[in-house]
Amino acid sequence: MRIRRRKNAAEILCQKYADFVVEEPNKLKGKWKEKLGYDKLYAEFGSGKGRFVTNKALNQPEVLYVGVEREPEVLIKTAEKAATKLPKNLRLINTDVEFITDAFAKGEVDRLFLNFSDPWPKRRHAKRRLTFCHFLDRYKQILAPGAEIHFKTDNRGLFEFSLNEFSACGWTMKNIRLDYQPEEDSDDIMTEYELKFREMGQPIYRLEAFYPNYEEKV
Amino acid sequence: MRIRRRKNAAEILCQKYADFVVEEPNKLKGKWKEKLGYDKLYAEFGSGKGRFVTNKALNQPEVLYVGVEREPEVLIKTAEKAATKLPKNLRLINTDVEFITDAFAKGEVDRLFLNFSDPWPKRRHAKRRLTFCHFLDRYKQILAPGAEIHFKTDNRGLFEFSLNEFSACGWTMKNIRLDYQPEEDSDDIMTEYELKFREMGQPIYRLEAFYPNYEEKV
Repeated sequence: MRIRRRKNAAEILCQKYADFVVEEPNKLKGKWKEKLGYDKLYAEFGSGKGRFVTNKALNQPEVLYVGVEREPEVLIKTAEKAATKLPKNLRLINTDVEFITDAFAKGEVDRLFLNFSDPWPKRRHAKRRLTFCHFLDRYKQILAPGAEIHFKTDNRGLFEFSLNEFSACGWTMKNIRLDYQPEEDSDDIMTEYELKFREMGQPIYRLEAFYPNYEEKV
Repeated sequence: MRIRRRKNAAEILCQKYADFVVEEPNKLKGKWKEKLGYDKLYAEFGSGKGRFVTNKALNQPEVLYVGVEREPEVLIKTAEKAATKLPKNLRLINTDVEFITDAFAKGEVDRLFLNFSDPWPKRRHAKRRLTFCHFLDRYKQILAPGAEIHFKTDNRGLFEFSLNEFSACGWTMKNIRLDYQPEEDSDDIMTEYELKFREMGQPIYRLEAFYPNYEEKV
């Protein structure tokens, strides 16, 4: 995404949107649900402009939703949405997924959404894709036993790569769809990208994955 | 495929093409490689008109190739090709994959090809698809430890179904391709269907799968 640089976006986030933006997520590590009073924590990594995470939070007030986005200029869009719609159960973290285990403890996340992640189409950038094995191993550390990753994308190359990574790294996939239709899951929310790509008639790919034999292997 | 019924096709197969067609495969069960003098046995289930299996056999004379096709009227096309090109290492079986464990013993098959299998698009016919879990369990019984299934199809629905079945049944997949190009594998042979679909510009899907932890689970 082309980003219009906004001066001090990170500062604005923490000052103006302090109700939503968690400045020091490491202080909540291992205690998110206990401190904030929820039984479930669902996270979106690479939450972008926040249409998905904000609306999911509004529709599921019993679940704590956490949006993680490394670009402050993008995360601010989510903060603005949150400040308008005021979902009490939404928190935002401005960090790179690379450092996600600083924010969440082992087994703390009950579901992870990856939506229209950057495809990094060049082969030499494959290691940056959020479904690269290295990242899947990180997710394994913070996901609860049996917890699912829900992944969708318009990018065929990224989806193909992800199918191979999930399988190679020992994850079990289900509900794999090569032409996912929005009416298949009435609880789903379309992201900004998804709205655009669907308008262009492009197929959307989707899968769910979980790590079996959690206790043995993690 | 629309089949022109040919009288006594099964009889013609066994009489005219007795060099290739194995009339009583159960008599070779467990002894294919020993009796015929090969170290490896590769099979194609649903071998159709036989372009793939005949040419693979010609290109790999050190491997015993077995084509399995239930329609005698279709298998006869393969027998005709074989009678022209004379690959010594090709055998044909006229049977339904349902009964495949009558022909092959545990661990006897070193590789299995499924090419452009009938997609059986209606949901109520899903159990007939050759990548349905029931069949995958059969294949597990006759495949050698770590042996691979190589599957390709033009049919998106069948491919999607197959991804889900392989994953659900505990197989590990690799080299999953959503737009497989013939130049990716110089040893591959295009089937009759594949030639047609490629001419029409349709993407070809492909995957390889093997069953891990063979000893523990079979």
